[in-house]
Amino acid sequence: MQHFPAPVEKLIDCFARLPGIGRKTAQRLAFHLLSLPAEEAEEFAAAITSAKSEVGFCKFCQNLTVGEVCPICSSPTRDSSVICVVSDPKDVAAIERTAEYSGLYHVLHGVISPMNHIGPDDIRIRELLARLSGGGVREVILATDPDTEGEATALYISRLLRGADGLRVTRLAYGIPIGGHLEFTDAATLGRAIEGRREI
Amino acid sequence: MQHFPAPVEKLIDCFARLPGIGRKTAQRLAFHLLSLPAEEAEEFAAAITSAKSEVGFCKFCQNLTVGEVCPICSSPTRDSSVICVVSDPKDVAAIERTAEYSGLYHVLHGVISPMNHIGPDDIRIRELLARLSGGGVREVILATDPDTEGEATALYISRLLRGADGLRVTRLAYGIPIGGHLEFTDAATLGRAIEGRREI
Repeated sequence: MQHFPAPVEKLIDCFARLPGIGRKTAQRLAFHLLSLPAEEAEEFAAAITSAKSEVGFCKFCQNLTVGEVCPICSSPTRDSSVICVVSDPKDVAAIERTAEYSGLYHVLHGVISPMNHIGPDDIRIRELLARLSGGGVREVILATDPDTEGEATALYISRLLRGADGLRVTRLAYGIPIGGHLEFTDAATLGRAIEGRREI
Repeated sequence: MQHFPAPVEKLIDCFARLPGIGRKTAQRLAFHLLSLPAEEAEEFAAAITSAKSEVGFCKFCQNLTVGEVCPICSSPTRDSSVICVVSDPKDVAAIERTAEYSGLYHVLHGVISPMNHIGPDDIRIRELLARLSGGGVREVILATDPDTEGEATALYISRLLRGADGLRVTRLAYGIPIGGHLEFTDAATLGRAIEGRREI
C-alpha cells in the first residue's frame, strides 16, 4: 500500500533496489534527499547521469576511465612490461594506494564462478590475451582475491599463459598480514606462510 | 587521493554524504549504479529530480504531496473535525497503516529541540494554529513520539491550545505494546500503563 506521494514512493523504490539497502533505510535516504536544498538533490541526480554517461572502460586495461585510455595506461612513467591482473577497479585503487607498483593493470571485471554462471568468456580474459599477443610484456601478476573463485580464475589464466615465450606468470604472496598475530591466524594462511617462507 | 575517474569519485561523494552511509558503502553503491543498464541509472536520476521538483507540502496539513492539497485533506470521507498532530510524514504513513483513524493530520516537520536549535517557530505550529482558528475542529490529538522532545512539543502545543472553546486536546495512550511481556517492559512504560489503566 502506498502512503507517500508517487514520486516519493518511486524514489524509495530506487534506493531499495540498491544492494544492502532495505526498505526502511531507503525511506530514510529518500526523505533525506527531499530535505536537501534543490541544488544538492540536483547535484546528486547529475552525478548519477554523468558517472554513467562519461565513464567507460580503458581500451587497454579495461579499468574505468573518462575517455579512451586511462591515466595509468597513458602514463609514460609506468612500466608497460608488467601487467597486474585484478578482478575489480577497486583492486586497482587498493594497489595504487600502496605506491609499490609501477606497472600496468588489467581489470577482469569479475571472476570465473560456475555457481553464478560466470564463465571465462564473461570476464575480460580475451582482452588480456589480445594485449599479451601484442608482445612486450615480460611478467603477468595474477592478483585476484585468494578465495576459491579468485584462485580458480588465477589458475585458469596461468594455464592459458603457460608456455608463452619469456613470460613470467606470478601470484601475490600469501602470509600473515602485517600487524597480525600467529595465535589468531587461521590455519590455511599460516600454512601458506610456512610454505612461502623466505631467507632473511 | 583520487583513484577513480572524477565522475565516479563525485558519485561516491554524493552517496557518502547521505546519512548512515560511509565511504565503503558509498563506493559499493556507486559501483552498483555504474554496473546497471543505462536506463535504470537514468531512472534513478530522474526519480531524484522529480521527487524533489514535484513533491511539495499540502497547504492544509503540511504533509508531502503532489499538488496543492493532499489526498487525505481532499477526501470527502475523512472527519475534518479531528486533527492528529505528528512530527513527520512517516508518522502519517504509520497511522494510516492501522486503518483506525479517519480524521485529518497536521505534520510539524520536526519537534522542538533546544539542543539542535529548533524552536517552536522552526516547526509548523503556526500553520496548525491558523488551521484551528478557522474553526470546525473539536479534537486535536497530539501524536508526537513519547520521547523527551516529542513530549515537550506536545506539552508546548497543548498549552497554546488551552482554553480554546470546545476543543479537546488529547495525547496517544502509553502502555505495554501488544505482544509485549510485563517482565521485559521498562519501568517508565509499565508505570504509564498502570497510571492509564482502564475498566474492562
